[in-house]
Amino acid sequence: MRATVMYGAGDVRVETVPDARIVERTDALVTVTRACICGSDLWPYQKMKHRETGNRMGHEFIGIVDAVGADVRTVKKGDLVMAPFAWSDGTCEFCRKGLQTSCLHGGWWGGTTLDGGQGEAVRIPQADGTLVVLPVGRDHTLMPSLLTLTDVMGTGHHAALSAKVGPGKITAVVGDGAVGLCGVIAARRLGAEQIIMLGRHADRIALAREFGATDIVSERGDAAIERVRDLTGGLGAHSVLECVGHRESTITALGIARPGGAVGRVGVPQYEDMPAAIPTFFANITIAGGPAPVRAYMAELLPDVLEGRIQPGRVFDRITNLDGVPDGYRAMNAREAIKVMIKF
Amino acid sequence: MRATVMYGAGDVRVETVPDARIVERTDALVTVTRACICGSDLWPYQKMKHRETGNRMGHEFIGIVDAVGADVRTVKKGDLVMAPFAWSDGTCEFCRKGLQTSCLHGGWWGGTTLDGGQGEAVRIPQADGTLVVLPVGRDHTLMPSLLTLTDVMGTGHHAALSAKVGPGKITAVVGDGAVGLCGVIAARRLGAEQIIMLGRHADRIALAREFGATDIVSERGDAAIERVRDLTGGLGAHSVLECVGHRESTITALGIARPGGAVGRVGVPQYEDMPAAIPTFFANITIAGGPAPVRAYMAELLPDVLEGRIQPGRVFDRITNLDGVPDGYRAMNAREAIKVMIKF
Repeated sequence: MRATVMYGAGDVRVETVPDARIVERTDALVTVTRACICGSDLWPYQKMKHRETGNRMGHEFIGIVDAVGADVRTVKKGDLVMAPFAWSDGTCEFCRKGLQTSCLHGGWWGGTTLDGGQGEAVRIPQADGTLVVLPVGRDHTLMPSLLTLTDVMGTGHHAALSAKVGPGKITAVVGDGAVGLCGVIAARRLGAEQIIMLGRHADRIALAREFGATDIVSERGDAAIERVRDLTGGLGAHSVLECVGHRESTITALGIARPGGAVGRVGVPQYEDMPAAIPTFFANITIAGGPAPVRAYMAELLPDVLEGRIQPGRVFDRITNLDGVPDGYRAMNAREAIKVMIKF
Repeated sequence: MRATVMYGAGDVRVETVPDARIVERTDALVTVTRACICGSDLWPYQKMKHRETGNRMGHEFIGIVDAVGADVRTVKKGDLVMAPFAWSDGTCEFCRKGLQTSCLHGGWWGGTTLDGGQGEAVRIPQADGTLVVLPVGRDHTLMPSLLTLTDVMGTGHHAALSAKVGPGKITAVVGDGAVGLCGVIAARRLGAEQIIMLGRHADRIALAREFGATDIVSERGDAAIERVRDLTGGLGAHSVLECVGHRESTITALGIARPGGAVGRVGVPQYEDMPAAIPTFFANITIAGGPAPVRAYMAELLPDVLEGRIQPGRVFDRITNLDGVPDGYRAMNAREAIKVMIKF
């Protein structure tokens, strides 16, 4: 089969790899129908040191079950399924609490030992815990929005929950990538009354406004902090969604939270130590978040997508096939595309 | 009048200073009957650079109202009152939300412009928002426990709330000072089922056990983390109270929290950046806390003290008069005393 392999910064190839196959009795084999490229895929695209054995890529996908292991009970051959960006057994202490990204027997797609979603097929470990069956056909018009439930929409929702968004709360979103845009959807969905988007790309800002952003702040650093204070009666936002992961964006996120507020961070940290520990302490700001347990959120968000109340699929502004994946990375990294969908 | 002034590390003096007096119409004048020395007073005792004009000290006190300004409505001459470690107007956006330590018109005792609690009298700004009248006499046997409501008991409670302690939760307390010991009381009060105290002073550990600690961990660093994991089925604690403020103790606190858990930090940070931002992110650990809004907690905790359900006053293991304050600092810093009460 063919799949995407990254060998180093800027070096993404589509190659023939060993066919995905069932190994354990709890596995399923899925033929991918849709996948996409994630903002977090750009971190290795920018930084990865060259390795002779590359990393298989892709952690967001929908596909058709081709076969199941002897112990699989909840999915069967022919089902259209979505896979969250982490696989999990669904039964351990953490899965039962809805934190599947910390599953004691789970893990992450791709790398050197597992298939990735940016390929023709994927071996699914712990299929019963991992997969969710979709009640639509493989080319349903809602496919883009359904695909976001495998990561970015669930991640935006996690940022919003971690930042304690709720009715009447002033919410700020740091980062205008696909996750930040989904964060705007999530904040509006959870009842935020004012939603301030910090971003500077015209196409993304336009989409943020359509998703519910009420104010746009295009400044950066201290100027951004000052502007948000102006927009919030000098007090700052109750809830801040950090959807980037840079040290600088984190300083901004912490700086625009009001005393007693919360920052939900979902951007994978590109820093070792969390900045501003002292002012954050004196203002009693809560810092929460991490990898979103999107598996837990699928049940909650799926009806909203199926019934058209949210349209997170609009973050996809480019569609390609498997051969176009390397150029998709380039385009997203150059900020020519917000998010690239791969159609098989 | 006479009051405590700190001029630099190790240099604490009791001196004659200008008499406390009413300045604003919202002030009260309080004659101090009890005060104490705080663990946080030891930070400047260890580090403060010499200054010709010293800092007035003390932020935990009970006293008798001697006079009130023209606009004061809720306290009157002769009332016995307790003052939280921060003063606040009680009416601003943050006070109304119960976060009086971020009061828009509030502040901190002592320093170069205000009186401190370790002195004969204190000018109380924003008396209506700040003071709470006590329904007992000035020498009531519960005075030590009542005095802890001005800081350490409320701070331990804040750590526990910030760490989301609740019924069935495994709680760990980092630090066996007065705040950590009150954290044990708070954790038990909120229903924690297992309470692990990390500390190594025999007298404090004995008290922690009496307060409800079920396990003691005397190791430090990685060994402490390993030991807590052993005590928690390998998973870590749901709730961790960081009651020290050192970088090392914070690394320990973050390291013993289980995925999805929470660390409530109330030790004043002696570090600029929060360590372990990446593992904390991947484990979805929440970091919360800061200066406790003890003014908000007084109403909740006061009945428990008056009715004898909690006895936080047991953290006081030494009593002195005003002249004994410098030696009280020395004794607490040398770990000869857990917490020193000053009786006027």
